[in-house]
Parts: sequence; C-alpha cells; structure tokens
Amino acid sequence: MSDKVRIALDAMGGDVGASVVAPGADLALLRHPDTEFVLFGDQAVIAPLLNERLRAASRIVHTDVAVRMDDKPSQALRNGRWKSSMWLAIDAVKKGEADVAVSAGNTGALMAMAKFNLRTMPGIDRPAIAALWPTLTGEAIVLDVGASIGADAQHLVNLAVMGSAMARVLFDLDCPTVGLLNIGVEEVKGLEEVREAGRMLREAMLPDFNYIGFVEGTEIGTGRVDVVVTEGFAGNIAIKVAEGTARQLGQYLRSAMSRTWRAQVGYLLARQAFAMVRDKMDTRKANGGVFLGLNGIVIKSHGGADAEGFAAAVDLGYDIVRYELIAKIRQTLDHYARRDADAGKVGEVAT
Amino acid sequence: MSDKVRIALDAMGGDVGASVVAPGADLALLRHPDTEFVLFGDQAVIAPLLNERLRAASRIVHTDVAVRMDDKPSQALRNGRWKSSMWLAIDAVKKGEADVAVSAGNTGALMAMAKFNLRTMPGIDRPAIAALWPTLTGEAIVLDVGASIGADAQHLVNLAVMGSAMARVLFDLDCPTVGLLNIGVEEVKGLEEVREAGRMLREAMLPDFNYIGFVEGTEIGTGRVDVVVTEGFAGNIAIKVAEGTARQLGQYLRSAMSRTWRAQVGYLLARQAFAMVRDKMDTRKANGGVFLGLNGIVIKSHGGADAEGFAAAVDLGYDIVRYELIAKIRQTLDHYARRDADAGKVGEVAT
Repeated sequence: MSDKVRIALDAMGGDVGASVVAPGADLALLRHPDTEFVLFGDQAVIAPLLNERLRAASRIVHTDVAVRMDDKPSQALRNGRWKSSMWLAIDAVKKGEADVAVSAGNTGALMAMAKFNLRTMPGIDRPAIAALWPTLTGEAIVLDVGASIGADAQHLVNLAVMGSAMARVLFDLDCPTVGLLNIGVEEVKGLEEVREAGRMLREAMLPDFNYIGFVEGTEIGTGRVDVVVTEGFAGNIAIKVAEGTARQLGQYLRSAMSRTWRAQVGYLLARQAFAMVRDKMDTRKANGGVFLGLNGIVIKSHGGADAEGFAAAVDLGYDIVRYELIAKIRQTLDHYARRDADAGKVGEVAT
Repeated sequence: MSDKVRIALDAMGGDVGASVVAPGADLALLRHPDTEFVLFGDQAVIAPLLNERLRAASRIVHTDVAVRMDDKPSQALRNGRWKSSMWLAIDAVKKGEADVAVSAGNTGALMAMAKFNLRTMPGIDRPAIAALWPTLTGEAIVLDVGASIGADAQHLVNLAVMGSAMARVLFDLDCPTVGLLNIGVEEVKGLEEVREAGRMLREAMLPDFNYIGFVEGTEIGTGRVDVVVTEGFAGNIAIKVAEGTARQLGQYLRSAMSRTWRAQVGYLLARQAFAMVRDKMDTRKANGGVFLGLNGIVIKSHGGADAEGFAAAVDLGYDIVRYELIAKIRQTLDHYARRDADAGKVGEVAT
C-alpha cells in the first residue's frame, strides 16, 4: 500500500451520479487529506464538478459506458464488462492501482462484476455484504445483508470470520463479540444451520473473536454484540425494517411536534436535543455496504445517498484500507484452517 | 356463538401469571361488557384477584398444573396435557365452551398444545402466528412471525389467505391488500419460493384480497399494504428488529431530552406530543400473536406484558370472535379451492 489511500470511484453510479459523487469525495477528502481518487466516468460531466482541492487529489479516467440502476446483473456484465465506470473502478482494485472501490450503482450489478473480476478469497465460497448498524453503545456490524440467500453452517462461520475481522479493523478491538441472529435464545429453537454454526463456532474457540451465542432481533441495537451474523434474506429484511421503523418514528415525532403551539415552542427549546437524536438516526452516516470475501474491497453506497451519505461510504473505504481489513480476514481464516488441521492430527493420533 | 363473547384464559401463563391476567381481563371487560371469562388455574391464587365486576363475568376452573415459561414444547405436552391451565384453556375452545383462548405462557408450548388439540383446518398444513404492526396509516398484519421456519410457495399462499381474512375481520375491509416480504421489488430478486408464491397469488385473482406484489422491509411501517406475508424466521426477525429499534430510539430521545435545561423545559412543554408518540410506539397496544390455521383461535400474549398489554391481547380475541375470523378464513379457502377445481376443469376440456 502506498502512503496515501487510493480510492477508485464509479463516478456515474447512483440515482444522480457524478453530481453526488464529486462533492461526496470532496467531503471525505477534507476529513482524510491523505487520500487519492481515481474517478471513472464521463470526463465532460465529471471535470466541471471538481473544485481545486479535489482536482489536485484526483485523476479522471474517461469512459462512455455506465451501468444503469435498473440493469439486471447479467445485462450489466454483458454491456458493461471491461468498459463501464463500475467495472473500471473494480478493475483498478484488481490491478493494484487502487486500494478500494466505491460505487453507488446498482447492487446486483456491482456484486456480479466484483465477483467476476476479483474472485472469492481462498476458503470463501460466497461473498457477503456487511453493514454498520447504530447501537446504544456505538455500532455493530451486521452481515450478510443481501449478497446471498440462505446459508449452510460453514457459510455462517465464514461470515463470523469476515465480520469479526471487519470489527477488529473498524472498531479497533482485539477480540470482538460475535452472535448468530436467531429467533430464540434457547438452543432448541431456530434453523438447523444456525444451530450447527453455533456448535462449530463454540468449538473453534478462535483467538480472533468471542462467540457469545444466539441474539434476537431486539438485541441488535442494544450493542450487546459487535458482530451479528445471519444469512442474506433475513439480514436484508432486518436492516430495512430498522431503517423503516426509524423513519416511521421520525414521522410520528414531526407530526406530534407541529400539532400544538406548546409542542412547537417545546420543539424550539429542545431543538439541539432533537438534532442529536436525528444525528443518531441519520442513516446517511451509516451508509456503505462492504463486500467481503473477495480479493479486494468494494463498497456499495446507497443509490439515493446525497453527498454527505456518499462521503460516509468513502470514509468507510478509507478506514478499511488504513487498517488492513483483507490481511485481518486472511489471518483469521488461517487460524481457523490451522485449528482444523490440528484437530485432524489429534484425530489421527487417537485412532 | 352465544350472545356474549366467551374467552378462556390461561390464568397461570406469563412471567407473573394471575396477577397480570386478572387485572388485564378486567380492563378488557370494561371496554367490552358483553364478555364472559373462564379462568383456568390455581383457584386460591386467582379468586382474591377478581374484583366484583370481573367476578360477576367469570368462572374459575381449578387446576394445580401450570406450564413453565422455560418448558420445552415436548416437556409441556408430557407434563401439562389434559390438566394444565394452558391445555384446559385451549380445550375449552375445542369443546365449544369458549370462543377463543388467551395465554401469556411460553410460545412453543402453547403452539404445540394448540396444534395437538385443535388440529389444522382442512387445506392448511402448518399453523402460523400473525401479529399486528403499527403503521403510519393504522395497522398492518404480519405473518408468520415464528410458528414455522421456512415455507414453500403453497404455505405462503395459505398465509396470504389467512392473513387477509384476519384483515377483513379486524380492519373491516372488503378486499385488503396483500404483499409478499422480499429483499427487492424486482421480479428477479429474492427466494424462489417467494417468487413462485407471487405467481400463484397473481394468477389466483381471488375476490377476497388484492395481491399487490413484493414489499421490502422498509415498507411494512408505511401502511402500503394491509397484510405482509413471510415465513416465520424472517417474520420473527422483522418484528423483533422493529421492537428493538423503537426501544432504541426511545432511549436516544430520553437521554437527549434530559441533557440540558433547555431540552428539559422543551420536553415539559411538548410532553403531550411526546405522550402521543409514546402511545403510537407502545408495543403493549399491539400485543397479541394470533395462531391461525387451527380449528379454533388461540391468542398468545407477550410473556412480559403488564395488565394493559394483556388486555390488548384479550381485546384482540374479542374482535376476532365478534367478527367471525374462522368463518372468513374458510370462505377464502373455499374460493381458492373452487378456483383450483375450475382451473382443473378448464384444463381437462383443453386436452
């Protein structure tokens, strides 16, 4: 890794594209001046959007082709491989020209291209998308939030390995706590694969994370665990329900606070407090799904994110590179593989 | 059905038992004086807890046996069948001595006993638990929230049939809207079983509900659909995440409003507005999981509910009986079966 963090941006991705990507990158650059950007997309569109500071830290690589938000993954691969802004951003990571790629383009296409180009790490069959989840005590990592549907026990164990590596990097923890999302805390409940993954994690006793058992949906936001592991269908439902519920309660509050003059005055007096709460509920700040399990890091920003939201996704990429996520995942996978090998040897001696 | 709504209560169920069940029943009785209760449990414990009004509307049936909150379903059946307060409350429904049973006892045991004693309705393989979900425009019904894990397309269709019947009864709608919970609104995404169920529902075009396609986790709280259908694992995660998120935001608000004197004064001025929001967020008011698909209605109250919460579960039972849920489910199942038979006939003519 060079001294600077080099971030490849799909400048055409997202609902509005470059007019969010450029100011978002600039916001992130203000916070992390040791960043370099490569922006992939339409030169004529991008160049006028760069201010002096961003221009000094950026390079534009022109391409005419952009993946559309409603392209199916197969379409995107057919029309956009080798040449679209999305592909080229990922390809910069593969070629070692960038440390991480960030795109607000469509998730299916981005995952398909990332898988196709970067391939999964040795020991990992299926990539995952990890998301940050605000909790009462800070943040938790929840994965998978939609990369793959269904999971056998080994995939859930891999998710625990990758998610805990991410927690070590982002939360600066030596041994984060990991829980399996389930529908009851008793051992008898839940999916067979989840129970089996629980047994495997308990027996593995890896030095890199602390498996603490099942967690229920109510507990994700309490901060009881640093990493919540689940398969992609339930994980996607979970994160979207949390987002929807936060929005719904915001709506209740807004409408209640405007109903009477007393409430309006009260709101004015307490507006700093409300701003604090809004800040905590601000989904833009937790923007960015991290693709894990590939030979390179790709970050998916919400397609509808504004500049502040896109900047959060870029920040996330910066942090992950600075603290060497991929190396930490490899380390834990090695520990896991060695433990398996050791277990095999013990077995041989015993027979 | 007699003129009165006859409700069987497992007076020993829940974290504290009769001391919540009795005052809860009394609250519900105040709202619905045309109710009769049969309370099953320890006579010596229950009798002193009944005030004059409740005593006049109640009958106590004594039993020494109570299912414990941590009994496994198999244990509960072994030790509690024929004689526990939980079993006897369900049995009263089976014998036609009560119109509905309400218990705050443990979910697994209650479902096992209800299945064993009431059996599933013809055309229904597996029962479901339906829950009320507060939305911006009122309430939605979400099912299954944990009775069974995984679902084939036919089970999802059955959930749509049962949930829509419940919406017709509780929301007084002729043709409620039904959506399938999925992780994307595009047809290409999501589980194969969910997509197949979508095809079946679209083709069925039943007069009893309006299938409107996939809904995402963010949309449940918007009120876009009256009935949200999903299998029990994702449904349980969804409802618990919503509960946890509401609690988390309440915590943020409380702590923000107590930090400065301005916020405190603001809070005092706006306290009626806060009370309104708290009221909307009050999970006690939406308490009560309805067991659907059995030959009789059983309502599960939250084990930790207080008297107000238990009363909400009793109210739910009252409404369901008054508006004849079971008859409406049968009607829709008949429509569905007849449509299938007609389709079969058309096929025969065509070949």
